[in-house]
Amino acid sequence: MRVGIIGVGTVGSGVVEIIESRSAKWSAEGISLEVVAICAKSEAELAPYSAKGYKVTSQADDLLKDPTIDVIVELAGGYELPRKWLTAALQAGKHVVTANKALLAKYGHELFPLAMQKDLSILFEAAVGGGIPIIRTIQEGLTGNQVQRLSCIINGTCNYILTQMSQHGLSFEEALGQAQAKGYAEADPTFDIEGIDAAHKTALLASLVSSKRVDFQKIHVTGITGVTAQDIEYAKEFDCSIKLLGNFRRVGDKVDARVHPCIIPNDHLLSSVNGVLNAVYLECDNLGPTLQTGAGAGKLPTASAVVADLVSLARGRSPIPMGWFSESNLADLVSVDTLETRYYFRFTTKDACGVLASITSILSQHKISIESILQKNVKDPGKVSIVLITERALELDVKVALQEIDALDAVTEPSRMLRFL
Amino acid sequence: MRVGIIGVGTVGSGVVEIIESRSAKWSAEGISLEVVAICAKSEAELAPYSAKGYKVTSQADDLLKDPTIDVIVELAGGYELPRKWLTAALQAGKHVVTANKALLAKYGHELFPLAMQKDLSILFEAAVGGGIPIIRTIQEGLTGNQVQRLSCIINGTCNYILTQMSQHGLSFEEALGQAQAKGYAEADPTFDIEGIDAAHKTALLASLVSSKRVDFQKIHVTGITGVTAQDIEYAKEFDCSIKLLGNFRRVGDKVDARVHPCIIPNDHLLSSVNGVLNAVYLECDNLGPTLQTGAGAGKLPTASAVVADLVSLARGRSPIPMGWFSESNLADLVSVDTLETRYYFRFTTKDACGVLASITSILSQHKISIESILQKNVKDPGKVSIVLITERALELDVKVALQEIDALDAVTEPSRMLRFL
Repeated sequence: MRVGIIGVGTVGSGVVEIIESRSAKWSAEGISLEVVAICAKSEAELAPYSAKGYKVTSQADDLLKDPTIDVIVELAGGYELPRKWLTAALQAGKHVVTANKALLAKYGHELFPLAMQKDLSILFEAAVGGGIPIIRTIQEGLTGNQVQRLSCIINGTCNYILTQMSQHGLSFEEALGQAQAKGYAEADPTFDIEGIDAAHKTALLASLVSSKRVDFQKIHVTGITGVTAQDIEYAKEFDCSIKLLGNFRRVGDKVDARVHPCIIPNDHLLSSVNGVLNAVYLECDNLGPTLQTGAGAGKLPTASAVVADLVSLARGRSPIPMGWFSESNLADLVSVDTLETRYYFRFTTKDACGVLASITSILSQHKISIESILQKNVKDPGKVSIVLITERALELDVKVALQEIDALDAVTEPSRMLRFL
Repeated sequence: MRVGIIGVGTVGSGVVEIIESRSAKWSAEGISLEVVAICAKSEAELAPYSAKGYKVTSQADDLLKDPTIDVIVELAGGYELPRKWLTAALQAGKHVVTANKALLAKYGHELFPLAMQKDLSILFEAAVGGGIPIIRTIQEGLTGNQVQRLSCIINGTCNYILTQMSQHGLSFEEALGQAQAKGYAEADPTFDIEGIDAAHKTALLASLVSSKRVDFQKIHVTGITGVTAQDIEYAKEFDCSIKLLGNFRRVGDKVDARVHPCIIPNDHLLSSVNGVLNAVYLECDNLGPTLQTGAGAGKLPTASAVVADLVSLARGRSPIPMGWFSESNLADLVSVDTLETRYYFRFTTKDACGVLASITSILSQHKISIESILQKNVKDPGKVSIVLITERALELDVKVALQEIDALDAVTEPSRMLRFL
């Protein structure tokens, strides 16, 4: 299998490194995998490869038009150019391997049907969960199951920040600063901390398990900027953790897909997935619950997933039909208002008589039952924090009740709400 | 793909059930999977299938000689007959799917090379870890990695017994009784509790990650019959759990493979895998640590893994070469004496002056350093339990030191030893 690589940044250079170190072993097993050309924008990036004798170019077209190349590996990032490249690659009869979840979330409905029409593979193990082989697990390992629910920790930056906040009592800003210092967060961290990256990945996973295209722009997304050290501390008092989760649930013929911080009981497997680790937890009709965890980012973990895709192609893997990932086969998403779960609320109120009674009375009017309650004096004198865990309640009821509670005179700050896993 | 099934006990009936419920959906995706004949020993087992119009027989030969059958699913169990059937199936150009780890551990070196010679697949996802798709993960998902270490909780019966002992303070005998009452353990539980089943599976996993045949009869195996409630309680005081683990480690060109109870720090992901759950933890050169967990047994979980193998075949999966799993390509196993790890020791001694000094002096003579120590009076008056956690030490030194300690007059019972993960 002759490979052309577009983009030799962190992951791309890892791919070349792994292939160089393994190709002798693979040859002995009858697997032929050879990087024949590398494309990158800058001379500086290409120089080390040119020195080693690789054909290098700054023009992606040189790879796309090379009839001897069997597969294009796209690791450049962005949307519009990769869309053009990969369309051209498929048109030219080449398989495609990519780690670009944003591209697939945005233009997968063009690319997957085209690949199917041409009987080619688009492999994207590295696009979700870094080195964890979760795409294969869903596409091949769990074909004897219907996945009913999925919850994933799928953005290492957010998980690192929340873990640091929890383990060291840091504020969100402090933990973000640390993540930036360690290279786990970008200078502009919006994409990660606002949940956009998690939404791309969750939409892809939700699509795979439902065989319908889940539009990432239509799913409910809340990032982690509103999670406070205080909430994390209170969660601990209920023996819970707070994690940013991507969630999928099958609701009849419809799909519930959401990305938001969740509160998780500490005896759940996901609660101990800390730091930059990723994890995908699935509930299947036959298998029951199953979880896969590992490094969700980083040069060699991600590169190893790209390489696994290339080895599959070199072994002659038949394309897995993804034609259903089309413009028209859009999943019907249920509104988050229809969700029924347990909730965590935190209210900041004046230290006045009758406040708790007013709050609980509003909750009860909206059929929201209280499971546990915790009242704390906060630093600010005259203020009180009231933390409640509810029994299962309907999101729409919760929304209305919280609006009414926030309108109370005695309530001094907007209430905080977290959904249970 | 036309399927013949030999054996319709628990798992086999689950396979038929899943295929019946999914085949319409699969047809729509271009996957054709049809059970055409079922073989079982007893009329009673066959009657419901005969009533539904399946071709049924008590003669495996009827399936093996049917040229319209593409794949034989062997779920009968045992060694010698399955060996004959699967050899005949491969000779006749049929793929093979099996859940029979004992068969593969014993006769895989005959069957895999034959399959390779005939360009056929032997798929065995259900043989290890029940419904967890760990075989695919190793054979396809992690091909960009070299697995350096593997530790697995791979026998649900043992994990259930140890979890019950830990969570409810039961003795081994009480927990075993519970497991038998719940159907998690056989009337004769030897195969599970002595670690033989775990050894079959560990040998298979160790073979897959090393690409050398690991002979299950040559690996070090200790079951869980010697684990006491007392050891589990002491482990808790060191914030650790006790689990039966299958272990693999690459030692240069050699392989370290062992099955025995291990003591695991509670912050390790494997420590929270409880009850009948299975889990496989791998350390890979590029990906780092990764874990997969889920139901390791049961009708539908295991059947779903068999079905996933059938779907792969129906999709035209190319055989993954397993010719290396041969008579001659035997892994060179290192002796457990060369292991270097931390150890847990428990000594039962007379409550006499100088005993601790004698013990620690012997340990120190054998270059075994102590990390933590715990001394407890036991119920028996005049007796004392001394529990030690060592720093890393060599197993051979440990063996000799324990012999010397057991020979001390003041030591009243054979010493207990557990290896750390």
